Amino acid sequence: MELVYRSATVEDLQELVALLSNDPLGNQREDPAAPLNDAYINAFDAINHDPNNQLIVVELNDCLVGMLQITFIPYLTHIGSWRCLIEGVRIHSHFRGQGVGEKMLQHAIQLAKNKGCNMVQLTSDKQRTDAIRFYEKLGFKATHEGFKLAL
Amino acid sequence: MELVYRSATVEDLQELVALLSNDPLGNQREDPAAPLNDAYINAFDAINHDPNNQLIVVELNDCLVGMLQITFIPYLTHIGSWRCLIEGVRIHSHFRGQGVGEKMLQHAIQLAKNKGCNMVQLTSDKQRTDAIRFYEKLGFKATHEGFKLAL
Repeated sequence: MELVYRSATVEDLQELVALLSNDPLGNQREDPAAPLNDAYINAFDAINHDPNNQLIVVELNDCLVGMLQITFIPYLTHIGSWRCLIEGVRIHSHFRGQGVGEKMLQHAIQLAKNKGCNMVQLTSDKQRTDAIRFYEKLGFKATHEGFKLAL
Repeated sequence: MELVYRSATVEDLQELVALLSNDPLGNQREDPAAPLNDAYINAFDAINHDPNNQLIVVELNDCLVGMLQITFIPYLTHIGSWRCLIEGVRIHSHFRGQGVGEKMLQHAIQLAKNKGCNMVQLTSDKQRTDAIRFYEKLGFKATHEGFKLAL
């Protein structure tokens, strides 16, 4: 399986939002209608102009099969370190159970190593029991509570 | 109690690293020796030059009593939104139990609102049971597992 990883472009947005919407949690909070809500375009521009953020799409035979976003963050803690935060991991429903997710995560982990990060972190909704098992299998440890406060 | 919030400067670094070290988890992983390890200076420079990162110190009567770091992150999810990640929250041991932490967090939440964020998030080590109660009292919900992978 030859996956291709690249940065998302504005031309991918409609498909990416469809992917975010095709999800038990995402379908309650996204708006995949065309033309796309400007808020998606604005968010994409902000991501695209920030060297510490990368929105990555994954293709298989020219089909978009997955996405994730990584954020590199410098911290004083751990004797001054960079950390890589992963968010918005989605695999197209037709391409699940084939190892795409694991390869995508390994790619993100490699990018974090290349940047010199000492840690990769992410949060996963406790309702997503499959995702939680997936991250544990990859070696992630659920040592922390993931707190959210909606504004 | 009149707390003063300001961005950290390089002159604060020795005191900030001492604060990070004076902690059951931090004392195992920080290096408060003077002169400071260059890695702290480099991390501070990276934070300071990134408009989406702010290292905030809190003073009471000209004493440094607390610190935290906020990171603003643009995401496609939630119809294109900004999120505020809080990390490295520390209160000086002499100033605990006086409401400093709550005021500090409320200040950070206000900065997130000013930026237009729709969510504030943070992770807290499951060993920090006092911190977990503190965040729950402030209205944070531990809806997510906080996964870490050391590199």
